[in-house]
Amino acid sequence: MQKIINDPKNFIDEMIEGILEAHSDHIRCIKGDLRCIARSDEKKPGKVGLSTGGGSGHLPLFLGYVGKGMLDACAVGNVFASPSAEQMFELTKAIDSGSGVLYIYGNYSGDIINFDMAAEMADLEGIKVEQVVAADDVASSPKGAENKRRGVAGIFYVYKIAGAYAEEMASLDEVKRMAEKVCANVRTMGVGLSPCIIPEVGKPTFEMKEGEMEIGIGIHGEAGIGKGRLETADMIVKKIMKSILEDLPYRSGDEVSVLVNGLGATPMEELYVVYRKVAQILKAEGIKIYHPYLGEFATSMEMAGMSISLLRLDDELKKLLQKPARTPFFDQIQLK
Amino acid sequence: MQKIINDPKNFIDEMIEGILEAHSDHIRCIKGDLRCIARSDEKKPGKVGLSTGGGSGHLPLFLGYVGKGMLDACAVGNVFASPSAEQMFELTKAIDSGSGVLYIYGNYSGDIINFDMAAEMADLEGIKVEQVVAADDVASSPKGAENKRRGVAGIFYVYKIAGAYAEEMASLDEVKRMAEKVCANVRTMGVGLSPCIIPEVGKPTFEMKEGEMEIGIGIHGEAGIGKGRLETADMIVKKIMKSILEDLPYRSGDEVSVLVNGLGATPMEELYVVYRKVAQILKAEGIKIYHPYLGEFATSMEMAGMSISLLRLDDELKKLLQKPARTPFFDQIQLK
Repeated sequence: MQKIINDPKNFIDEMIEGILEAHSDHIRCIKGDLRCIARSDEKKPGKVGLSTGGGSGHLPLFLGYVGKGMLDACAVGNVFASPSAEQMFELTKAIDSGSGVLYIYGNYSGDIINFDMAAEMADLEGIKVEQVVAADDVASSPKGAENKRRGVAGIFYVYKIAGAYAEEMASLDEVKRMAEKVCANVRTMGVGLSPCIIPEVGKPTFEMKEGEMEIGIGIHGEAGIGKGRLETADMIVKKIMKSILEDLPYRSGDEVSVLVNGLGATPMEELYVVYRKVAQILKAEGIKIYHPYLGEFATSMEMAGMSISLLRLDDELKKLLQKPARTPFFDQIQLK
Repeated sequence: MQKIINDPKNFIDEMIEGILEAHSDHIRCIKGDLRCIARSDEKKPGKVGLSTGGGSGHLPLFLGYVGKGMLDACAVGNVFASPSAEQMFELTKAIDSGSGVLYIYGNYSGDIINFDMAAEMADLEGIKVEQVVAADDVASSPKGAENKRRGVAGIFYVYKIAGAYAEEMASLDEVKRMAEKVCANVRTMGVGLSPCIIPEVGKPTFEMKEGEMEIGIGIHGEAGIGKGRLETADMIVKKIMKSILEDLPYRSGDEVSVLVNGLGATPMEELYVVYRKVAQILKAEGIKIYHPYLGEFATSMEMAGMSISLLRLDDELKKLLQKPARTPFFDQIQLK
């Protein structure tokens, strides 16, 4: 496999060592456990703690968003595998400052089981914990069964907006309400043009022929919900946008933020070709774009492909999206 | 080819349309020519203009660094092909505010010929132009023949530091001196783990077998200066660092900024495994790291691989590196 790694068994620990070496001004590990990452600055008394967790292989997800204005902690699993409940619980204790902790994570059974256990452990210690599960991938389950959908790139918006709100000293219930509001207004869909290779496995996660694409791809190296002939960028965008727009639905007069997310190997050049068509479609629909994000926000290692997310904004969401953030993988100054 | 594009002939124009759509707060095109990109804010009377140019396929290079604190303009060519002298000249006129214009670009014959012609055209119009050519790739030519080296990711530092100095209203001669000082103190070397595909060509730029790597890779889809067996990350870093450290040479007591640059398809996870070893080696050598940059700064479309750049700092370079910048592809707040 064409990867710049050492022993695959050490891949994640060595990656985290590199991240801590580069970003010790932002983050540190708790109790010497490389898989327990928290903000390195002093915790603010009374601030609600925001914690996440999930498998590795998705950088900047998940740990890349730990920092000022976003998350307080992240439990880090092996490639595409959940971290443990104990690690989540250690972080909960580390970041709680008396006002409780909100877990925000993607809709995957391993993560749900472990975060549920961590919440029970926290409860026994008298730490109030609430949970919000992101499930933004419209391709993974039909309308009406939204709770079965996967969480993908749209979780970036949940971190950003809930993080900004917690920074303003909102209560646990309020931060939870806001995180749920983001979840209710964000939709994502993607396509994959290549599989990826899990280092410890050593072979591609699925078979793919030249000239094909996987439609409705997730971020765990799995095949999409359907295979199709690789189409032009404009056709791909048209189909994705149709699914997303009809799902919420997004309507004329709405204002949205757009996230065009690269899954790993797809160059920025192609993401902008995609964005060009996204903007054309939204204009034709009478939907206003507020602030587009383009780049790699939630990846599947070296998978080629991309996803499009829309977040419908109102005044409250927009004001929080505009707030500054400063993390190892995402910096934003106050937006206008 | 597994690309999300429309007609390959329109690839670059459509990409630029997407970029202008997304980043009109930063950049605009001059005289309706999509290949002539300049800052969208008013030019500051007396500020030296900084212009660059080069082929496409390298995002964020080149046009991604046009913005406050970095470049004023960029002429955009087709994939891996120089833009025209006329385009460079149009931009020169657009950004000159009476104090002259500095061209900063990579050491490629097509770009040199065209920038030389543009400089002559500017001279006839009474615009003072100076040129600085980046040639940081130690693998491409031996010590003693530095002027034959390719310009690769290290040019990022030239843009950043010269851009900050121009923003401080330094004179053309002074900005040129500073850009040359960066060039004199930056060295880069990279490896490639896959070729890439130029859309209009449709097939890989070179042959590569599983388990091989190209050593001393550039950013134009060309093969490296040597083929080798793909080694571990630590071994690759050791070899690259040896070549870079001996070349300047960098010595115990020096302070450097490090840039670990992904060439396109290599995930961030691997870049941090690389950085871990870079930091270990520099510590062992007694060289202090000031501020590492990791990510995609100069790519070769969807090529897998990475490069390492070191910039030796002194007080003057460090102070300018710390200054804020705000461009479509690179944001930095004032560093400490």
